[in-house]
Amino acid sequence: MVFNVVNDMSEISIKAGVLRETLDVISSLVDEAKFRFDEEGLKIRAVDPAHVAMVDLALSKSAFETYEVEPMEMGVNLPKVQNHLKGVKADSIVILKVDDDTGRLTMNIENLTVKMPLIDLSEMTEPKIPDLPDMKAQVKVHNSTEVLKAVKASESISDYITLDMQTEDVLNLYSSEELSSMNLELRKGKDYDVIQFSGPARSSFSLDYFSQIMKAIGGEKELELHLGVDYPLKMLFHIGEGEGRALYLLAPRIENV
Amino acid sequence: MVFNVVNDMSEISIKAGVLRETLDVISSLVDEAKFRFDEEGLKIRAVDPAHVAMVDLALSKSAFETYEVEPMEMGVNLPKVQNHLKGVKADSIVILKVDDDTGRLTMNIENLTVKMPLIDLSEMTEPKIPDLPDMKAQVKVHNSTEVLKAVKASESISDYITLDMQTEDVLNLYSSEELSSMNLELRKGKDYDVIQFSGPARSSFSLDYFSQIMKAIGGEKELELHLGVDYPLKMLFHIGEGEGRALYLLAPRIENV
Amino acid sequence: MVFNVVNDMSEISIKAGVLRETLDVISSLVDEAKFRFDEEGLKIRAVDPAHVAMVDLALSKSAFETYEVEPMEMGVNLPKVQNHLKGVKADSIVILKVDDDTGRLTMNIENLTVKMPLIDLSEMTEPKIPDLPDMKAQVKVHNSTEVLKAVKASESISDYITLDMQTEDVLNLYSSEELSSMNLELRKGKDYDVIQFSGPARSSFSLDYFSQIMKAIGGEKELELHLGVDYPLKMLFHIGEGEGRALYLLAPRIENV
Repeated sequence: MVFNVVNDMSEISIKAGVLRETLDVISSLVDEAKFRFDEEGLKIRAVDPAHVAMVDLALSKSAFETYEVEPMEMGVNLPKVQNHLKGVKADSIVILKVDDDTGRLTMNIENLTVKMPLIDLSEMTEPKIPDLPDMKAQVKVHNSTEVLKAVKASESISDYITLDMQTEDVLNLYSSEELSSMNLELRKGKDYDVIQFSGPARSSFSLDYFSQIMKAIGGEKELELHLGVDYPLKMLFHIGEGEGRALYLLAPRIENV
Repeated sequence: MVFNVVNDMSEISIKAGVLRETLDVISSLVDEAKFRFDEEGLKIRAVDPAHVAMVDLALSKSAFETYEVEPMEMGVNLPKVQNHLKGVKADSIVILKVDDDTGRLTMNIENLTVKMPLIDLSEMTEPKIPDLPDMKAQVKVHNSTEVLKAVKASESISDYITLDMQTEDVLNLYSSEELSSMNLELRKGKDYDVIQFSGPARSSFSLDYFSQIMKAIGGEKELELHLGVDYPLKMLFHIGEGEGRALYLLAPRIENV
Repeated sequence: MVFNVVNDMSEISIKAGVLRETLDVISSLVDEAKFRFDEEGLKIRAVDPAHVAMVDLALSKSAFETYEVEPMEMGVNLPKVQNHLKGVKADSIVILKVDDDTGRLTMNIENLTVKMPLIDLSEMTEPKIPDLPDMKAQVKVHNSTEVLKAVKASESISDYITLDMQTEDVLNLYSSEELSSMNLELRKGKDYDVIQFSGPARSSFSLDYFSQIMKAIGGEKELELHLGVDYPLKMLFHIGEGEGRALYLLAPRIENV
């Protein structure tokens, strides 16, 4: 067993709503994750078991109510924590402490105290986020609900969805199979702003993953999309009431020739 | 494959809520139906696979936002269309077009475009609605919720429900089995108005069908009932914000002697 | 078949909400129960099939809208009655009558009449509520929601929950298994008032039963708890808008040594 030993008992407190949002983002891909706390805040990286999607998340220490942590790492079983956050009001304060002797996490929510074992860090691997070159098409979608709408319409048609930007004026999300098809058209200005556009971009993605991810992101959010040609999709958005950011990387589906 | 060929591309637009209501009425009995568009509007007739219940529906062209259609027929897979209407606001406009070359239906809902194959009309039969003589007891029930209430109470008791009108003053809906029974009493004036009453009427109906149909009709609606003696039940109500009407015919259960 | 014969037709009326609450308390332990009506009101006692939990309930005749009953007993199938109360407004009046000739219960809810067979009383046993001595720790918990919270947090951890009161100042509800644990701390004054405290008390209970019971009690209720040392738990609360009271007795789990 490998637990980081710190001198002082580490303790943080955070709004239940912010913690829940953070866990939901990570748990869209994995059940267990390594939480790294340092001077800047909390950082989590995870890759799904099939290595199709990655998530990289950072929550600034200003997203916490109190943040008294020596740099440390802990392995967390996400559903166990999420389970105890069900039905807790978003602005209830959750206090998290690590007992270095027993390797247990203590969670306080008002008068409730829950203790749970942490996961042995030596059994966990943290993915390296690949250093992708700047992608051709980068846009800021005003409302993630539009992307969610495309995902839902695609689900009855195919197992894949394609994001396609031939000019900077239109971003199409579509899928088709045999005689059925769907297309959602997003327009520059109305639906998104262009961050960068240096040529046409188009890639297809597994709906299994894309749906999972979009459900974790949720609706009514600003969502940055970086799209290439048969290239991984980068999705960036804010969490923690603006005091954090999350990045998904989703591998493209390369069609068999 | 048999598709009606028209010169101009046919196009109609309709509120999502009205289209959803129309499809719900038909899909209570069948999964596929023939939609007939003519100068007056849309007409649909269907009979369930066991030939126990029929529906005959007409939506006036005034129920549509725009209606530019050459007379034509198309075979529609109802769940496929319904699926794309889920979560769409009732007053969103849905545009429907038929591509005569490919035999596909195109549906536009704001920035979403969905295309789906139509069903070969040569494989579809449209039932003839029998020309039933005037029935003995004809009433206008003020609120379909009362009939729904009777259906729900019956479901835990029997597989059948009986509608019984011995005088024009009372309409009883009841079911019984062994020692259990339920009776819902509707009264003239309070619960219904009499359209015609020329003698006692009583018939029993399968709850499987009656429940299905009442769920499609829904609550809080005016509902016309025509009842005979061991005779099919006629149920008439308005759809499309008053710009359409639907008729169900439900075969009676004839008790074995 | 044994039915109590009375001269006059017995008839009571009661608000649907009060009847539903009463049935929910009993049906947390059994599907069938003997209802005893006497000059004071309705009394019901039941024990679950495994004889782990008992309920003893009394609804004063003032909890009824009308109460014209000769003393009598009837055997009721609870789910059958509950089924017909679904969706009925809490302040709708339910009229209950017993037909002594046929042994059937008639239930009127507005214009709906339901008849159902009663259960043969000779096949029913009514438990004797044991005459337990005064327990060491007796408290009045201000809000049953706190206990519900402890039950929910326990369910992901263990099959048992322990109630523990070492001093009169703190009541702990906890459960643990291997490295996981949860503890909910209730404090005197803030969360409960002390009725009596004559020494430490602690007992453990099966969550299967405790959850069932707490769901029937519901949240936002004052709840009296009598706790001993490895002793049955007594739970008392009001029903029927204050015109009735219910008592649960739950056997402790005695740990194997």
